[in-house]
Amino acid sequence: MTGRFEFKLLGRDGAARVGKIATPRGDIATPAFMPVGTAGTVKAMLPESVRATGADIVLGNTYHLMLRPGAERVARLGGLHRFMNWERPILTDSGGFQVMSLAGLRKLTEEGVTFKSHIDGARHHLTPERSMEIQRLLGSDIVMCFDECPALPADRGRIEESMRLSMRWAARSRDAFGDRPGHALFGIQQGGLERDLREESAEALKAIGFEGYAIGGLAVGEGQAAMFDVLDHAPGMLPEDRPRYLMGVGKPDDIVGAVKRGVDMMDCVLPSRSGRTGQVFTRRGVVNIKNARHADDPRPLDEACICPACRGYSRAYLHHVFRSNEIIASMLLTWHNLHYFQEIMAGMRGAIVEARFEAWEAEFHATRALGDIERI
Amino acid sequence: MTGRFEFKLLGRDGAARVGKIATPRGDIATPAFMPVGTAGTVKAMLPESVRATGADIVLGNTYHLMLRPGAERVARLGGLHRFMNWERPILTDSGGFQVMSLAGLRKLTEEGVTFKSHIDGARHHLTPERSMEIQRLLGSDIVMCFDECPALPADRGRIEESMRLSMRWAARSRDAFGDRPGHALFGIQQGGLERDLREESAEALKAIGFEGYAIGGLAVGEGQAAMFDVLDHAPGMLPEDRPRYLMGVGKPDDIVGAVKRGVDMMDCVLPSRSGRTGQVFTRRGVVNIKNARHADDPRPLDEACICPACRGYSRAYLHHVFRSNEIIASMLLTWHNLHYFQEIMAGMRGAIVEARFEAWEAEFHATRALGDIERI
Repeated sequence: MTGRFEFKLLGRDGAARVGKIATPRGDIATPAFMPVGTAGTVKAMLPESVRATGADIVLGNTYHLMLRPGAERVARLGGLHRFMNWERPILTDSGGFQVMSLAGLRKLTEEGVTFKSHIDGARHHLTPERSMEIQRLLGSDIVMCFDECPALPADRGRIEESMRLSMRWAARSRDAFGDRPGHALFGIQQGGLERDLREESAEALKAIGFEGYAIGGLAVGEGQAAMFDVLDHAPGMLPEDRPRYLMGVGKPDDIVGAVKRGVDMMDCVLPSRSGRTGQVFTRRGVVNIKNARHADDPRPLDEACICPACRGYSRAYLHHVFRSNEIIASMLLTWHNLHYFQEIMAGMRGAIVEARFEAWEAEFHATRALGDIERI
Repeated sequence: MTGRFEFKLLGRDGAARVGKIATPRGDIATPAFMPVGTAGTVKAMLPESVRATGADIVLGNTYHLMLRPGAERVARLGGLHRFMNWERPILTDSGGFQVMSLAGLRKLTEEGVTFKSHIDGARHHLTPERSMEIQRLLGSDIVMCFDECPALPADRGRIEESMRLSMRWAARSRDAFGDRPGHALFGIQQGGLERDLREESAEALKAIGFEGYAIGGLAVGEGQAAMFDVLDHAPGMLPEDRPRYLMGVGKPDDIVGAVKRGVDMMDCVLPSRSGRTGQVFTRRGVVNIKNARHADDPRPLDEACICPACRGYSRAYLHHVFRSNEIIASMLLTWHNLHYFQEIMAGMRGAIVEARFEAWEAEFHATRALGDIERI
């Protein structure tokens, strides 16, 4: 693996940006949506199918992988790319967020976090240094700083304290990351909904210096309006010439609103998780395939979609296999959802390059507002 | 859809036969193994992947499909081929066997069977005439006679009575099937392990006349030795110039033994069901991927296998995703198992054509006897 990590801004339309991240494992067209491959698999998808949806990069979860199969084991097996048969770029989170949301009996100190595995109750310790080591063992291309993130709403004192701890951990992450050509370390801005804290966090991160900058601490229960309020100013606090990554977002309209406000990268379990629960995202909004109205419907989910689920199967079939708990339901609906999310990204990239983002966005919202096709 | 249903015997080596069934939906190379697509899907597989394993034909279950989504509904949606996105031949069973093994509160009369659905308890009625109607509505290429099949061991009186009922139902099935060019109706020989009853059944079926003949009532608990004893004479009771289908078989060595004895077609849920339970069939026998010995093993399931599971993934990965209950485990292990079963069939076809079946069989058994590769 030779070459380096590099971000090129290729165009801009208002605050929206289009660009390219070059890595030794391939390019990432931005704005990019990253499917989540939690434990070494984007659930219900083969990696070649994930790629076929248009994904340039997937996300892996440090928390899950450190517990099972274990980072040292993945390293012995040749790294996460080979392990999961995905040779393109991988971004790994730091484990911090999922320790807070999934693990048991957490104890937080200046040093790091001690917690119990949600799988077998075993005790684990995560620090900025250990998180960097795990992400190196996994072979991650884009490594995230170890941070702490309170659920919202939280009082300002808690957010401020947490953000400052995360900034000290960001400095320790930078030190521990070391010199790894071709790999990137991203800092994570915190500060909740407090503009001055976001500002302070951005300054702290820029003083350390990172290959990219994430906006953390959003999509944790604050609602879209509050999130967009933050995104109206947060991206502008971060360096122009580095990718900006909004973590854990989101629904299609969240994604469009974030890109409009200057975000370059996003990830979310929504398209894959929803695929397994029968919730389907289409140009005309959400379709619940479980609904009896689809039982006799010979039409595809979305006649304008070219994904395998739409080209090969009726709503009636998808309804049947979903109701029958057949695995193919998860496979096809996940594929469709991921395809649709990538189609949104490609649509926005094209629109930004051609400086017609506003028109694209208006059509996006107008088509959604139509709602699903009439019942048969 | 034009053309007709036709069987050509292309070669023979001892009792083993190689041939081709031509249908308007494509050819079926025999000996053929038919993956089971119970409810309109071969579980955990996309149909294009089923085809990629080498399958020429899949099996659908009348019992499951009549209950959900319903035969009339499938017909309105354009038939089972379009419904499940499989344009090649489909064989459907008659529902008889699964009514006996799955349904509740069965009541058997000369007319047919009344039973309660295992899904919602609704009352249903199946007769030879209704079974033919359902299989026609599904659009099945190879239709099976409605029969009754007792579990073994059963006393001779029960087997005899059941076989004679099935023969009367076979005549009613033939009448109800009507004239359907390009489609075939197969009779089903019964008679348990009783040679004279098998003979009587074969004579009754030949007197009616069918496009193919199945050997039913085996693989129901009698053991391989007893099954092979029947297969030593049963295929020879059936017409030379028609395909012979052994229903519900089996394990790799069952399949090889059946082909050796003159069987042309088989079906079984084993490769797909085992894929979902972590049982893997390889040239060197069965591998249980759950076993801890695989956790650090970078080698593929079978280094000589070219299926996607073996080309792209280590045993360590397959072990990890199986233990993590990831859907990709079912997808990859099912694919491998189906691929291996089709590889056995292709190997036997080649060996029979070249009159070296005995050598092929010896190597098949010798390789299995080696057992799995040494642990790492």
